Amino acid sequence: MKPHIYFNSNIDSPDEWKAALSQHFPDMKYSVGEVCEDPESVDVALVWKLPNRGLSDFKNLKAVLSLGAGINQLDPEKLPRNVPLARLVDDSLTQTMIEYAKAATFRYHRKFHLFERQSREAQWTFLPATLARDTVVGVLGLGELGGAIAKSLAEEGFDVAGWSRTPKHVDAIATYSGKDGLSDMLACTDIVINVLPLTDDTRSILNLEFFVQCKRGACIINMGRGHHLVDADLLAAIDAGQIQAATLDVATVEPLPPAHPFWGHPAILVTPHVAGISTPETAAITVAQNIRRALNGEELAQQVDISRGY
Amino acid sequence: MKPHIYFNSNIDSPDEWKAALSQHFPDMKYSVGEVCEDPESVDVALVWKLPNRGLSDFKNLKAVLSLGAGINQLDPEKLPRNVPLARLVDDSLTQTMIEYAKAATFRYHRKFHLFERQSREAQWTFLPATLARDTVVGVLGLGELGGAIAKSLAEEGFDVAGWSRTPKHVDAIATYSGKDGLSDMLACTDIVINVLPLTDDTRSILNLEFFVQCKRGACIINMGRGHHLVDADLLAAIDAGQIQAATLDVATVEPLPPAHPFWGHPAILVTPHVAGISTPETAAITVAQNIRRALNGEELAQQVDISRGY
Repeated sequence: MKPHIYFNSNIDSPDEWKAALSQHFPDMKYSVGEVCEDPESVDVALVWKLPNRGLSDFKNLKAVLSLGAGINQLDPEKLPRNVPLARLVDDSLTQTMIEYAKAATFRYHRKFHLFERQSREAQWTFLPATLARDTVVGVLGLGELGGAIAKSLAEEGFDVAGWSRTPKHVDAIATYSGKDGLSDMLACTDIVINVLPLTDDTRSILNLEFFVQCKRGACIINMGRGHHLVDADLLAAIDAGQIQAATLDVATVEPLPPAHPFWGHPAILVTPHVAGISTPETAAITVAQNIRRALNGEELAQQVDISRGY
Repeated sequence: MKPHIYFNSNIDSPDEWKAALSQHFPDMKYSVGEVCEDPESVDVALVWKLPNRGLSDFKNLKAVLSLGAGINQLDPEKLPRNVPLARLVDDSLTQTMIEYAKAATFRYHRKFHLFERQSREAQWTFLPATLARDTVVGVLGLGELGGAIAKSLAEEGFDVAGWSRTPKHVDAIATYSGKDGLSDMLACTDIVINVLPLTDDTRSILNLEFFVQCKRGACIINMGRGHHLVDADLLAAIDAGQIQAATLDVATVEPLPPAHPFWGHPAILVTPHVAGISTPETAAITVAQNIRRALNGEELAQQVDISRGY
């Protein structure tokens, strides 16, 4: 196969992806950047973001492959109709997401967020350790990523619960679904981790109504999308002591603007969208499979139902 | 059995220990504090620190049981000769030590120590994630605690090495011993965790000579004793960029004095000796077994060879 692959991303390395993909397609054609010289010959678009002019010149496109686990960074107005779209979840992405969730969860569990402050303020105040089994972690979203995160934290000994829109079963985890289920789970959860897909149903789900249902003093970890969170509601819930602290890997506008009140907030840790990363070397295996499927006219792996949004 | 137990600690709760021990010895006698009214009838001293006047009035003492995993908090001058001494390592202590090691290790592995600073300084700079298998963790000390920590971190996927004074084998871990072995291990270690016992051989082991042998930019986690570390040498190694950061749960003088340069240092996180905690409820099982052994004239579990120091 000699696919013509069009690559566009402001956060992934075109050279690393070229090297990784050429292992699978030594004779491929590879175009990069906003302007594509021969769009009609492009078979597959591998993109984090769509080019500004969209893909309407790509008359023979067989697939759009997202470089992310989500597709919300793709402007739906510019997505070509009738071209299948797939998201990218490969092992390295899942593994980095799991490790980020562990780093953020252990930090709250062992009160490092408080010790960091004490250390800056020359304060030696003993705060007793508890065991992982005494900390309840609630995971929002039990898809491929959320399910893997929930299972990993249960293996650490945390008391893990999980919530999804529709009922799901995950081994060793108490699962909840629906509006009432969410309320039940939040009432006894110490650390909430969001990895929901962003849809019309989940947009702004982390709002004041949500925070009020949380156990007092709960900590929030947002690994989903910035638009899951109502920023002002989080600030109000922290001010009220209802929410103790938050770790936010995503923002409504990225990079988070310099004047945003999350910066420098003593209860908020901002991380610059680093939770999950697909290493080109490993992710190219998954992508190459989808390129073959697209060229053969087969259904894509991790194909997105655009009407559902994930 | 109706043991007379003498309890002395400034960091453990005498009431919680009384409640936990009375589950095992409903008819015990229990004395607390600096002054013991009837020292000659005391069978067992359960202590974090020795009383100021020592234990010379405790003429019929059958065992001294440390409330800690180490015995360095016990003044050797005041320790009665010919009375067996045991340290305390129970499951809750091991488990809390493991979880602290994970919290501190994941924090460096996922660069949360840098993101905390960026978050305070309104800086959104992407720093790529790596996988646990790409981070080498070196554990100093492969006894009951160190071995358990090393194994747990290997199960997380970290590339774990371990060092001990005498050669040891631990499954799935590269082990080193002796002076040359230490140098070999440090040269390729990203995160060094110290859980050595404090002896004449290990006192001040974390000194400039040690730091110079480390991989440039290594991070240090001291979960052993304050006297393992030469404070000024750590500061110099950080200033020189040789050591990137350190997490210190122990100090030469505890609480760490307010004027100490570790406080507020941007590369140092001080935690107030919280890594390992024995929950009285679970630890009392281990202690009760040793009280029975002492009253029966049997050798203690975890009995300390005072000449060796652990």
